[in-house]
Amino acid sequence: MTPAQPFDKLLEIVGDANFHQDDAAMVRFLDEPRDLFHKGARCAVTPTSVAMVQKVMQFAYQNGVSVVPQGGNTGLVGGQVPANGNEIILSLAKMRQVRDIDASTNVMTLEAGVTVLEAQKHAEEANRLFPLSLGSEGTCQIGGILSTNAGGTAVLAYGNSRDLCMGVEAVLADGRIYNGLSKLRKDNTGYDLKDLLVGAEGTLGIITAASMKMFPRPRAFETALLNIASPQVGVDVFEIVRERSGNRLTSFELLPTIGIDLQLKHDLIGRDPRSQDTPSNWHILMELSLFEGDQDGALMAVLEELVEKGLVEDASVCNSLGDRQLMWLMRENYSECQKREGDSIKHDISVAIRDIPTLIEEVDAVAEEILPGIRSVAFGHMGDGNIHYDFLAPEGFEGDLQASAPAIHAATYEILARLNGSISAEHGIGQLKADLLAQKKDPTALDMMKSIKLALDPKNILNPGKIVRP
Amino acid sequence: MTPAQPFDKLLEIVGDANFHQDDAAMVRFLDEPRDLFHKGARCAVTPTSVAMVQKVMQFAYQNGVSVVPQGGNTGLVGGQVPANGNEIILSLAKMRQVRDIDASTNVMTLEAGVTVLEAQKHAEEANRLFPLSLGSEGTCQIGGILSTNAGGTAVLAYGNSRDLCMGVEAVLADGRIYNGLSKLRKDNTGYDLKDLLVGAEGTLGIITAASMKMFPRPRAFETALLNIASPQVGVDVFEIVRERSGNRLTSFELLPTIGIDLQLKHDLIGRDPRSQDTPSNWHILMELSLFEGDQDGALMAVLEELVEKGLVEDASVCNSLGDRQLMWLMRENYSECQKREGDSIKHDISVAIRDIPTLIEEVDAVAEEILPGIRSVAFGHMGDGNIHYDFLAPEGFEGDLQASAPAIHAATYEILARLNGSISAEHGIGQLKADLLAQKKDPTALDMMKSIKLALDPKNILNPGKIVRP
Repeated sequence: MTPAQPFDKLLEIVGDANFHQDDAAMVRFLDEPRDLFHKGARCAVTPTSVAMVQKVMQFAYQNGVSVVPQGGNTGLVGGQVPANGNEIILSLAKMRQVRDIDASTNVMTLEAGVTVLEAQKHAEEANRLFPLSLGSEGTCQIGGILSTNAGGTAVLAYGNSRDLCMGVEAVLADGRIYNGLSKLRKDNTGYDLKDLLVGAEGTLGIITAASMKMFPRPRAFETALLNIASPQVGVDVFEIVRERSGNRLTSFELLPTIGIDLQLKHDLIGRDPRSQDTPSNWHILMELSLFEGDQDGALMAVLEELVEKGLVEDASVCNSLGDRQLMWLMRENYSECQKREGDSIKHDISVAIRDIPTLIEEVDAVAEEILPGIRSVAFGHMGDGNIHYDFLAPEGFEGDLQASAPAIHAATYEILARLNGSISAEHGIGQLKADLLAQKKDPTALDMMKSIKLALDPKNILNPGKIVRP
Repeated sequence: MTPAQPFDKLLEIVGDANFHQDDAAMVRFLDEPRDLFHKGARCAVTPTSVAMVQKVMQFAYQNGVSVVPQGGNTGLVGGQVPANGNEIILSLAKMRQVRDIDASTNVMTLEAGVTVLEAQKHAEEANRLFPLSLGSEGTCQIGGILSTNAGGTAVLAYGNSRDLCMGVEAVLADGRIYNGLSKLRKDNTGYDLKDLLVGAEGTLGIITAASMKMFPRPRAFETALLNIASPQVGVDVFEIVRERSGNRLTSFELLPTIGIDLQLKHDLIGRDPRSQDTPSNWHILMELSLFEGDQDGALMAVLEELVEKGLVEDASVCNSLGDRQLMWLMRENYSECQKREGDSIKHDISVAIRDIPTLIEEVDAVAEEILPGIRSVAFGHMGDGNIHYDFLAPEGFEGDLQASAPAIHAATYEILARLNGSISAEHGIGQLKADLLAQKKDPTALDMMKSIKLALDPKNILNPGKIVRP
């Protein structure tokens, strides 16, 4: 490929309106949430159909040009931005068709560029629930959440993005189209290609559309913020609530009180949602979904039991939609309040639920040793064993927090390995953790991944430098 | 490899007690439920540990000998028996360790040879539910049900075997061990190798152990056999019950009344479980699971609504454990009663639930055209869109039913293709449907499968001739 040629040909394929190259136009494709990655790209294209994606990939394959698929550009590990600087960014943002909504089968077929919020609304219009919910839902897209197997706050009852997907359509490295859209709840006809493409961060194929599950809409939610003494109490509470509530328990989030203090300090919420009678360092944000046939008051019944057992001293129960909105705003602000407070060191990790207290105890202790006074913000999806384990600098600290990062990372991942935990519970690997993965993952698993990558993308043009480096 | 050598070496690896070669000993490895496949094997081995499986595979890899992994030998498509006759059968039946039962995390780690019934019992002892349930549960094993992604009667609420599995340990073609056992509900660290191995019928690796999910035990079941006018009414009923009962609806089986007639005729059940007031040609066997906090009477409430709406005229409601056992015995007998009646033509197919009435109408019509008087027995997991679509010879027919099989298969699969259905909903591909898969599957999907097979088993020694033939 000579330097001038490719752009002419690409321009021809996608048309003027879908070809982007000047600096101003490239900002939205290159700037990413954590400002960690700064490689450029040859250009960006925004194809409007699967046929156009196919032509772009045929072009890329013939010319050996690398392609970075991109959704809403909300990823936190650099999976959606270039690793090398000589890639084309292929944004799915303009593939926004709703191909089908089938309320009877509880499946909707959406193109990759439909946002999660839009997907929720489409389901709602069909009197159904699309349960995926996460902070970036207004921006992140179906293709992106599948490529990263995004989690969110309802995984406990409904599973990860993977579990919400019945099939995908994808364009492969050489431009062939894999037609895997499906409304079938059972289909044992060979290898599970859907689950191979889901979570592969666009390194094996570009997801262009997906069949997504819908569910009955709950008729009501019961939500409360519990004051608890420790993460161990959180685990004990979880076991009881799960036993009592089964699938009605849709969220169970562990929240250290410091996150609410910071939100009040930085004016991110209008009022304090905590019960003030017996303050505590830890909270559980818990939500039950009630369906037809469920009686109101399920939450109060289990709360009474928890108080009786001495596990919960106090709780703030939502009595209105406004209360509930405040609770979830507060939950979603746990990242933003840290950003406002300053620099942080972050981990997105998981362990078996019962190991969460050990994890927090050990990691907090070693971090305190490394940097005395460091502030721990370990929060997140306790019911899934998934903790967003962040650290803020000590109050009034004037040094460089990041100087402590390597030691804290090393200690955290060492503790995690002993607990058989995961180094990336929901954010994925991308560029950020590719080296870490190479160190920590079972070598046989790594070899299998490399073999699969080589088999499906022999020229290594699909999102190179992400997950595995063959 | 010279003819004498391999057996000596294999014998040495597994020991006398785990090496089987004479005809009498081979019967249990070679005879399969439908008596369709009659290839021999060089020998069978029954390793007792993953280390021993590893050594067998290292031997096989070095010598280019093919290996057929086998569980309970209950498969219906010949996946677990040789396709060529020169294979070694590797039975997992002696790998029976319960490695761990963790009631807090709701995970048990079982070796491949543990039967499904035993798994149910282990969970029960921990006051938990292992929801997989199918006719062969006393014999089929964890490794086998995962390799075939078995379904069963509780898929509606709990998913297929795939969904019940959090991770696997597997021995690869060259003897390497993939350590993928996991208790993590979230782990986004690269490609989903678990789901690639699950459902691969032992063609990509031999599953030696698995981490399986457990669930809260229902405190009660409410079960009824409904009389309905047609499959379309069944779909209408399903939509209402699903709306009212959500995840409490754990089984929804469509049953043509002929199957109960045959069971009475062949003395398979002691009494007629049907309500006799208004007989009908079709039934729904429906079960709700009630958990703590659920009120009794949920089934009666929804039944009243169905009667009021004119969808159900009559129902037989279970009032005792004995009633319920009879119902499920009757359900499980749907294959056996056909066997007693004589020859049959079988399909295991799925469509979107709302397309089931069309499927049955069209396939029945075309079968009647091909062989007038042919008796249709279309039954199974309506709530999953999965129909076991069988045909018996006309009453008093003295010809060869199988002479009509090719025409009926062709017509069925043609109708199925128009409805975007699956040619194998839960039984898998094995040998029986490998050619059919090659004809019917999306060619790109087939190519992807072949590439993956070649990448992970370059010598094609793992269960050759099953699923894809590279």
